[in-house]
Amino acid sequence: MDRLREITHIDNVKLSDDGRSVVIIDQTKLPNQTEYLTLGTAKDLYDAIFELKVRGAPAIGICAAFGMYVLAQTIDTEDYDAFSRKFREYKDYLNSSRPTAVNLSWALNRMERVVAGHREQGVKWIIELLGRECRQIQQEDMEMCRAISEYGLSLIQDGDGILTHCNAGPLATSRYGTALGPLFLGKERGMNFRVFADETRPLLQGARLTSYELQKAGIDVTLICDNMASLVMKNGWVQACFVGCDRIAANGDTANKIGTSGVAILANYYHIPFYVLGPSSTVDLSCKTGADIQIELRSPDEIKKKFYQKPMALEEVACYNPAFDVTDHSLISGIVTEQGIFRAPYTESLKKLIG
Amino acid sequence: MDRLREITHIDNVKLSDDGRSVVIIDQTKLPNQTEYLTLGTAKDLYDAIFELKVRGAPAIGICAAFGMYVLAQTIDTEDYDAFSRKFREYKDYLNSSRPTAVNLSWALNRMERVVAGHREQGVKWIIELLGRECRQIQQEDMEMCRAISEYGLSLIQDGDGILTHCNAGPLATSRYGTALGPLFLGKERGMNFRVFADETRPLLQGARLTSYELQKAGIDVTLICDNMASLVMKNGWVQACFVGCDRIAANGDTANKIGTSGVAILANYYHIPFYVLGPSSTVDLSCKTGADIQIELRSPDEIKKKFYQKPMALEEVACYNPAFDVTDHSLISGIVTEQGIFRAPYTESLKKLIG
Repeated sequence: MDRLREITHIDNVKLSDDGRSVVIIDQTKLPNQTEYLTLGTAKDLYDAIFELKVRGAPAIGICAAFGMYVLAQTIDTEDYDAFSRKFREYKDYLNSSRPTAVNLSWALNRMERVVAGHREQGVKWIIELLGRECRQIQQEDMEMCRAISEYGLSLIQDGDGILTHCNAGPLATSRYGTALGPLFLGKERGMNFRVFADETRPLLQGARLTSYELQKAGIDVTLICDNMASLVMKNGWVQACFVGCDRIAANGDTANKIGTSGVAILANYYHIPFYVLGPSSTVDLSCKTGADIQIELRSPDEIKKKFYQKPMALEEVACYNPAFDVTDHSLISGIVTEQGIFRAPYTESLKKLIG
Repeated sequence: MDRLREITHIDNVKLSDDGRSVVIIDQTKLPNQTEYLTLGTAKDLYDAIFELKVRGAPAIGICAAFGMYVLAQTIDTEDYDAFSRKFREYKDYLNSSRPTAVNLSWALNRMERVVAGHREQGVKWIIELLGRECRQIQQEDMEMCRAISEYGLSLIQDGDGILTHCNAGPLATSRYGTALGPLFLGKERGMNFRVFADETRPLLQGARLTSYELQKAGIDVTLICDNMASLVMKNGWVQACFVGCDRIAANGDTANKIGTSGVAILANYYHIPFYVLGPSSTVDLSCKTGADIQIELRSPDEIKKKFYQKPMALEEVACYNPAFDVTDHSLISGIVTEQGIFRAPYTESLKKLIG
């Protein structure tokens, strides 16, 4: 049970004791090394997010919130307007680090509202309130993950095979995770699952992080290449798919790690339920459908060179490297949030959830 | 045109000038190095096939046929029974190197029939005939690839986007290839296609070989991770999928590189035609359905360690690493062979093809 708790309560993102920096586990070094990074400047924070040293939509949001508190303390003025201007500058900079996950801008907006709402109280007090707000965001995420885990667990049976894509475990959130949360919670209660983790090219979050978390927690995990999911499902080994989410449109279309839509189409073909798990803050009603969600395109080198001893394709070969795709709402059996499990028609159920 | 011909006529498998060894391009070294290997012993041949230094169902068959001729010359006896026994031993050994592709056993059986059918003519003459037979197998493959390319080309239009998985080009066959053949042939005739090459984990034949062949030939190629195929199709960029095949059952179920069945399910979902291209020798009527096809399982290290600077998952994490999967006949729009394009119901059309 200790090794399980060690994983579910892993300190992937936290404030330093003096509150002057954000301390993260460098997820790009896992599973070979557990290395902590101390982020004290805007550039440190931007790079950590852009380079996926911290990743997972909720964890990015928490890191950015902590980061804004850290940066606010470095703004050397008592003048509200000057403070507010500089705060906004930092916010826009961090917000530009990754476009697809809504949690980043959501958390940054929450922090900015603290600034906007307390002009009269003065800069010093605002900084105090920012410190409370970012801790509150993390605390809420812990509670949300716990609630999502409970709801998710109600969807599966002891002994089930679960397929997951990318990483939506403790490293991507604060404790337990979203898509992996039910598996950790079930394990705590003596249940056993057989988990298939897609390695998730090109950045291998499934291999490096998901299989790491599950193995360390003593959960039965089998790592597969993304293109093996079809055969694993055909073999009858999968009773449900659990994935996280980066942004959910008003109609239920869901952006998540590239490849998720393919998993959903396979699950649909093999008649396996496909569930999206995430906090309700992932729903973005300003996006009517998935077509309104901006998809981040990343470097060809992630496909051709990253992690390898030698390049795996000619220098002149072009690559298409989208970091996310959108799963059509019609392929989603349910959206599991901290407020319950939402079903189609999503346009109605999600409006109620947010309303 | 010269660079196109250089690729379509690449000497991936040939007999040495003295006929005493098989010379192959070591495909595991591509695209970084073009290295030739000389295979003179049964172990050389077995290892080259097992380690995928030579790969692609037709190329494996040709290599094995050449190999049996080379080995036959080393059998130091004029006694037919002793010769035949040793020949059989070599054949069984090579046949055990990879179980899924039918071409390997098909080519070995053709060579053995030469031995079995000429007892009276004596060992020396048999060796002479074996030399002719293996060259004949390669010659036939060239002609088949050419015919397959013509039939395949009739299915697509100038400007089309084509998605392919793994490698079924010149390196996998003798000239032109099967799945890629129509694209090279079309290019010769001034047509242009936009090809999306799945990188094809874990051994990256799409990245290392397909994108290499197409780029070198001046064909517009975009490399993607396997899990990006869904988004590429959704974007409307794909008008047809072309894949090779390792064994086709009597009902049309088709074994091909792991991930092929997933591509077929995606194509079906997005209403994109999905074609299998290969010589008629790939049809194995002794397999009634895909369930009768043996699927090769390979080492976890191919997923966790191969090509990488460091392991990408913990040593103790289990992997499932099937080298092939079976695509259900219901997902296949047509099977393109040297004798024409065969359509459902395959149980009838394939029987006619073989009969």
